[in-house]
Amino acid sequence: MLHSMAGTTRYASVLKECEAWWEQEGRAITDAVDRAQTPWVRMFDAEGKRVDEILYSPDYWRMLKRGYRAGVLWRAFKDQSLLPSFLLIYLTSFYDCGLTCPYTVSLSTALPLSKYASPAIRERFLPKLLREDDSVWQGATWMTEIKGGSDLGANVETVATPQADLWRLTGDKYFASNAGAEVAVAAARPKGAPGGVRGLALFLIPRWREDGALNYTIRRLKDKIATRSVPTGEIELRDSEAYLLGTADEGIYLILEVLNVSRIANSLGSVALAQRAIADALNFAESRIAFGRPILDHPMLRAQFEERVRDLRAAFALAWHAGLLLNEVWQERRPYSDRYHLFRLLAHLAKYWTAEFAVQTAKWCMEVHGGLGVLAEFRVERWLREAMILAIWEGTAHRQLLDALEVIDRKKAHGTLLQYLGPVSTAEVREMVEAVDAQLKLPPDERERTWEPIGARLAKVTADALLRKMPAS
Amino acid sequence: MLHSMAGTTRYASVLKECEAWWEQEGRAITDAVDRAQTPWVRMFDAEGKRVDEILYSPDYWRMLKRGYRAGVLWRAFKDQSLLPSFLLIYLTSFYDCGLTCPYTVSLSTALPLSKYASPAIRERFLPKLLREDDSVWQGATWMTEIKGGSDLGANVETVATPQADLWRLTGDKYFASNAGAEVAVAAARPKGAPGGVRGLALFLIPRWREDGALNYTIRRLKDKIATRSVPTGEIELRDSEAYLLGTADEGIYLILEVLNVSRIANSLGSVALAQRAIADALNFAESRIAFGRPILDHPMLRAQFEERVRDLRAAFALAWHAGLLLNEVWQERRPYSDRYHLFRLLAHLAKYWTAEFAVQTAKWCMEVHGGLGVLAEFRVERWLREAMILAIWEGTAHRQLLDALEVIDRKKAHGTLLQYLGPVSTAEVREMVEAVDAQLKLPPDERERTWEPIGARLAKVTADALLRKMPAS
Amino acid sequence: MLHSMAGTTRYASVLKECEAWWEQEGRAITDAVDRAQTPWVRMFDAEGKRVDEILYSPDYWRMLKRGYRAGVLWRAFKDQSLLPSFLLIYLTSFYDCGLTCPYTVSLSTALPLSKYASPAIRERFLPKLLREDDSVWQGATWMTEIKGGSDLGANVETVATPQADLWRLTGDKYFASNAGAEVAVAAARPKGAPGGVRGLALFLIPRWREDGALNYTIRRLKDKIATRSVPTGEIELRDSEAYLLGTADEGIYLILEVLNVSRIANSLGSVALAQRAIADALNFAESRIAFGRPILDHPMLRAQFEERVRDLRAAFALAWHAGLLLNEVWQERRPYSDRYHLFRLLAHLAKYWTAEFAVQTAKWCMEVHGGLGVLAEFRVERWLREAMILAIWEGTAHRQLLDALEVIDRKKAHGTLLQYLGPVSTAEVREMVEAVDAQLKLPPDERERTWEPIGARLAKVTADALLRKMPAS
Amino acid sequence: MLHSMAGTTRYASVLKECEAWWEQEGRAITDAVDRAQTPWVRMFDAEGKRVDEILYSPDYWRMLKRGYRAGVLWRAFKDQSLLPSFLLIYLTSFYDCGLTCPYTVSLSTALPLSKYASPAIRERFLPKLLREDDSVWQGATWMTEIKGGSDLGANVETVATPQADLWRLTGDKYFASNAGAEVAVAAARPKGAPGGVRGLALFLIPRWREDGALNYTIRRLKDKIATRSVPTGEIELRDSEAYLLGTADEGIYLILEVLNVSRIANSLGSVALAQRAIADALNFAESRIAFGRPILDHPMLRAQFEERVRDLRAAFALAWHAGLLLNEVWQERRPYSDRYHLFRLLAHLAKYWTAEFAVQTAKWCMEVHGGLGVLAEFRVERWLREAMILAIWEGTAHRQLLDALEVIDRKKAHGTLLQYLGPVSTAEVREMVEAVDAQLKLPPDERERTWEPIGARLAKVTADALLRKMPAS
Repeated sequence: MLHSMAGTTRYASVLKECEAWWEQEGRAITDAVDRAQTPWVRMFDAEGKRVDEILYSPDYWRMLKRGYRAGVLWRAFKDQSLLPSFLLIYLTSFYDCGLTCPYTVSLSTALPLSKYASPAIRERFLPKLLREDDSVWQGATWMTEIKGGSDLGANVETVATPQADLWRLTGDKYFASNAGAEVAVAAARPKGAPGGVRGLALFLIPRWREDGALNYTIRRLKDKIATRSVPTGEIELRDSEAYLLGTADEGIYLILEVLNVSRIANSLGSVALAQRAIADALNFAESRIAFGRPILDHPMLRAQFEERVRDLRAAFALAWHAGLLLNEVWQERRPYSDRYHLFRLLAHLAKYWTAEFAVQTAKWCMEVHGGLGVLAEFRVERWLREAMILAIWEGTAHRQLLDALEVIDRKKAHGTLLQYLGPVSTAEVREMVEAVDAQLKLPPDERERTWEPIGARLAKVTADALLRKMPAS
Repeated sequence: MLHSMAGTTRYASVLKECEAWWEQEGRAITDAVDRAQTPWVRMFDAEGKRVDEILYSPDYWRMLKRGYRAGVLWRAFKDQSLLPSFLLIYLTSFYDCGLTCPYTVSLSTALPLSKYASPAIRERFLPKLLREDDSVWQGATWMTEIKGGSDLGANVETVATPQADLWRLTGDKYFASNAGAEVAVAAARPKGAPGGVRGLALFLIPRWREDGALNYTIRRLKDKIATRSVPTGEIELRDSEAYLLGTADEGIYLILEVLNVSRIANSLGSVALAQRAIADALNFAESRIAFGRPILDHPMLRAQFEERVRDLRAAFALAWHAGLLLNEVWQERRPYSDRYHLFRLLAHLAKYWTAEFAVQTAKWCMEVHGGLGVLAEFRVERWLREAMILAIWEGTAHRQLLDALEVIDRKKAHGTLLQYLGPVSTAEVREMVEAVDAQLKLPPDERERTWEPIGARLAKVTADALLRKMPAS
Repeated sequence: MLHSMAGTTRYASVLKECEAWWEQEGRAITDAVDRAQTPWVRMFDAEGKRVDEILYSPDYWRMLKRGYRAGVLWRAFKDQSLLPSFLLIYLTSFYDCGLTCPYTVSLSTALPLSKYASPAIRERFLPKLLREDDSVWQGATWMTEIKGGSDLGANVETVATPQADLWRLTGDKYFASNAGAEVAVAAARPKGAPGGVRGLALFLIPRWREDGALNYTIRRLKDKIATRSVPTGEIELRDSEAYLLGTADEGIYLILEVLNVSRIANSLGSVALAQRAIADALNFAESRIAFGRPILDHPMLRAQFEERVRDLRAAFALAWHAGLLLNEVWQERRPYSDRYHLFRLLAHLAKYWTAEFAVQTAKWCMEVHGGLGVLAEFRVERWLREAMILAIWEGTAHRQLLDALEVIDRKKAHGTLLQYLGPVSTAEVREMVEAVDAQLKLPPDERERTWEPIGARLAKVTADALLRKMPAS
Repeated sequence: MLHSMAGTTRYASVLKECEAWWEQEGRAITDAVDRAQTPWVRMFDAEGKRVDEILYSPDYWRMLKRGYRAGVLWRAFKDQSLLPSFLLIYLTSFYDCGLTCPYTVSLSTALPLSKYASPAIRERFLPKLLREDDSVWQGATWMTEIKGGSDLGANVETVATPQADLWRLTGDKYFASNAGAEVAVAAARPKGAPGGVRGLALFLIPRWREDGALNYTIRRLKDKIATRSVPTGEIELRDSEAYLLGTADEGIYLILEVLNVSRIANSLGSVALAQRAIADALNFAESRIAFGRPILDHPMLRAQFEERVRDLRAAFALAWHAGLLLNEVWQERRPYSDRYHLFRLLAHLAKYWTAEFAVQTAKWCMEVHGGLGVLAEFRVERWLREAMILAIWEGTAHRQLLDALEVIDRKKAHGTLLQYLGPVSTAEVREMVEAVDAQLKLPPDERERTWEPIGARLAKVTADALLRKMPAS
């Protein structure tokens, strides 16, 4: 699928080079990073100075920088298009979907920095993120605190206090992806701001203070079951220097814009992961013999392969169209267009559906491998671990389904969807939309209680329809 | 569920004591064993003698012996009933489903030893397995070799050569559960026997030769993702002393009898694991607050809980009835009765359905925990790892579905099932049985290719029906 | 040696029971704890509350509590004698010298608490430390900060601020033994106090505030090469509640009294460790055959054994007499007697000499084992790791030698030593003392520069002389 | 020291390039390899074929191949001089003394292959070892079996059976360095050969049989405390194809020639390790402040540094001269010259003395670092682990001292030494030689029993004398 996308684009040769590198060098590196488990943090140097260096093997840094050099970040700004980023994220996720987190959060940092920062701040930081060589800076997006990430309005307790021309932030971020980044965006509540999501603002936080001291500390890295190519940590902000992005009262909109990018990246990553699991299962099933023939030739297993390949293509179509829509609307500011709300609906459906598909496919890939599937030695168990993280971060299935329901309810985005599908729409789609309309008429609790199967079906039917919009490959 | 089963039995107080021990001591032990990952083998002592000691922490041995003392093995023979074993396996699996593997394979060793060994061999080994104190011996069941476990007829390459009053076995067992057991049963092909399953025989292999030397060596333990409470290894048999069980030409039937026990244990373990995942999710959802109320009170999540609790009860009913049937037929010898074939059908459906339910429930439990669900610190990610092994060992979903189809085709076991259900049968069950009959009329490849959804539905409908046979609790 | 000591005491049966426990259960536990490496800290519970639980295996806690129950803490107060503590520490160190750290720092907490706390504070905390069952509280002693532990006067930056009837401490302790203790003593500088050691005070810090909240947090545990039976961590004090011990201007004396206990424990632990290394080497050399005979019968190796056993006895004599002296003076307060200063000299010599002996003996034990000595499997490499920690914590060789020189210079403690040795003194001892006198006449830098061989010789000669004071065994 | 050696040689630029690579890239790689502990072996591929791949991170292979490319192997043959190998080994050991093991055993394989193999075998294998690019093959030297390596005559139980134009070897090698090498030399006893060392022969064993199958299997890798850059394993030879080197009755001489190389490499590695420990201690002592000045300026510590630097230079002189002598005699065959025996004496003294110096220096380096010295985070604890292995493999102190005594006794090598020292000899040296003569007059057991201090002194005095032979630097 990637090849069919890339073939029509100007990025074909970049992608081909990257793929060759992964096949020759990257595969062994990502295996080693996953096996080494959580990296460690050197907190102090020998002289007792707090340094908080994150220690991966040297190979890791080569692998990470490979994607930045290829343009996962700078091309978006040079070409004014998110598509090269999406293509590189998709390619990378086939090999290491955790590694795309640094890329994604760097992009999610660069975007609001370019759109909402003061010119001085933009000039100071943005060019460092867009470097085309290994001196590139990384970004990070830190929202969630200890009480949970779904309800930011209640749970962000980090306080921002204005001081001269900057702000001081104090609080703890509990799931901080890409801990150690040179610059991060973070949600905080200005002193005196109201409670709830309306009182949140978005800030830019550099790693080092203006006087060169560490501006935040890493309490520890999380011992995660997968995505070990991204250091996820707990961050302590203590009077940390920060710069306001946009205005203090529109933070929640900026936060949601940040999440737009990561939901698309997560969807593409999920599809790539499922593709990888199918590819590994296929390799195995072609060479494993039972009852006198390769197990791929066993009728039930072959039927399973065929169904999964078909679903994979539909899942890609869903994620890719969500990405195309984001590429249309990412420069919008409030008030947003209907196209923006259509994007939001597709993004929720895609995040939900592709992650679910990745989990089920990874599980099935393990089963195809039989006993070998549960051994660390054969590595396919890794895909399920990775998929579970894709299903959870950026919002669980539960969250995506409810957020989709909300944008349907408030913005009638399902109507816009029907128009968008246009000629590829089917009777099935139209019935779905009617079912959704019926759902909206229920009392709120009941509406939520019975929504899951309908939302799931909406995602599936939409994906199938969008597959028909894809160029033949 | 367990409580309702146990309440009507003579084992209530034993189970209560065991449960209390797990709550006070066992929980922390099983956590530590899982975290410690694969145990190690001390191959040589300081004098250079090969010893192959499996080194767990002392706590592990206390935990393991707890179940033997409670009677997971000896009660089956004293009471001539498998039910106490099943009840203890169910209870144990709520805390550590890997630990039930040693219990199960010990039982699966004791049964053919008691039924098919010569009196001298039975007298020599059986009493050691039935000891009621910590000096109890353990058993093991070693079938699978490097080329795979589904097609034993083609893949067992271990050769047995008669020598005086015993046999000598040479070969490698690739997935050897409970490596280190004092006595094991293993499949091998007597020299000169025909190929395929008909040429297999079942042997008893002690850990030590008659002269006291090691009788088999452990090449290594497998680095599994879960069930770390059972050491699974690769076993090297090299002229290892062995004793034939039954006759040399009926091995495959004895092997299948061995698997009967482990399929039931696996089914009960899967239900217990799902119960645990639901219990952990419930605890979390009661105390986690989002949007002003415990997440358990969010309508969609509450609906999910209700559905899973209902399915849990049906899954238990399916597994438990399969166990009750085994308890009726386990002393049968060939030719087997229709009741035996009915048992086989239920066992395949139960193994398949309960493991699938365990996997999906464990996955959902992680999602309920959100980001905490993928951290080693919070331990719920363990349930998915465990469930994946339950889904794979003793035969994958694929295998169970096809074996169920075979017993339906050859023995018309679905007809027997209809009779068995009797009054709890429904229109839905009867439609299922008709669909199965239609399936049997298809050409073989087509029959297999389209069987999966029908087999799955048969399992689900049967489970729902059997739930109605359960005593109210 | 222990047996000869214990035989003459009332503690013989306690020690015998403890030893039997170690042989039957403890050995395997301490092996497992060492292999598991650094324990981990559960920082937050599932509800997001900071809890900082230190997670060892359940076995660890059984092992730890075993010593408290036997009386390593409560007997000192019940019998008003440190000897039972010393005997139990010696015995324990033969198996696990890291485990004696919790015992020692608990004792080092209880002593100043009993001697210098206000009656109310003493009553509130001391009885909890002296419990005779598993509900016993533990203590801890936290002095060192990030800039180093030798020069506390310059490097303690923790600030104490008085508030109503307690103090508030803020600062970071960098090597905090027994992190997680229910109560600790710590050095801090009261706000406004002078710089240097004279401005330090000693405080008691409970784990929980009066309102039940955590009173200090554990930033992380140290990844140490050995003594894994004691969790050593970095502690963050943030307005932590604390109680002053003694007066604010005598802190340095109280700190030194705290170190008195740990230096003796360290010396006894070092001797026990050396004894263990010799015992292991002996077992191996008796059974390992080369060139036709056990290697123990090789003349060079046998000579090495004989010399090390002789030195072991002298090292014990040195450590034990230092302990006997502490038992005489531990209730003294300023101004201290000459006997106290004699103790200090012996303590420095013993800490230095026994640790050096432990390191060299552990190294030799590895060499005796040849290639097996460097394999984790054979466990003797552990003794060298343990010994290196004994040599470093509580002050390195360098520090002990210089502190010995200081007490010689200021208090003429070498003269007191000569008197103390009395009849067991020899010409060699008297020559040593003269050499020391000559050393004192050198200019300060020169005196230090050339002191090492003389100080080392003083320790050795003193140990040999004290061996003659020991009862024959 | 290296610089002064290299400055006068043609290898200065090669060494400089290597050093620059280590400073920029290698340091981080070797740290990561050490932290990752024992590498793992992938025993089977997904199709169940035994493959025994050793899995390091990709970085490891880059680091390893760096030295081969620089010429640690091919230069010895191109230049007909071992000096470039020795210089590169010395340089490498400053950073990773374990990595020099593959280089050394490859050299120790190439040498007898070139000197003693039949022309056909030499032509077939030698060029592959001398490749100048990354396709280079590696060698290995496997002597030791489970009963120990000192007494090969009694303990080699591997049997060699002739078969057509090759031999078949069956046995287990217990400490097999560079397991996984493409070709190895190994000691075995031809069927029917006499017992003892006279019955041993030396064989060349390729990794793959002539038909492409694996020719030996790796039972497991050893869990060593250090030198993790070399995979040390247990090797199973089972009818493994092998080629005789030299004649079947001169194996022991060839084995000793193999050890000649590794003893020199070990000596140079030990000196380099000690140099590294001193360098790290120096860096720390310059920046750590106590009592108002860098601890390097504390008189006792400064005296320690000065003494160690002096001893380091003497240790290098000893090792380097032993290397120069080997470079003179490595092409000799029996009967060997007096120069060869002089070499042997110096090699034993150097192996013994430099390893002891490395251990004591590494220990002291940890003490200089105080508490930081025992933390994995600060890495200096690694030097002691590495040094302990250098002290043990290739023969412990005990073995070297006794072998030195033997060559003195049988070949009067101490007389040759006196001549060799010539003008740099001193009264001290001459007294030593007289003491050695006196020792030889004692009865054998007594001679051995009292030999250690004299042998040690001989090594020290010789080193000091040889230092005077070194060019000023």
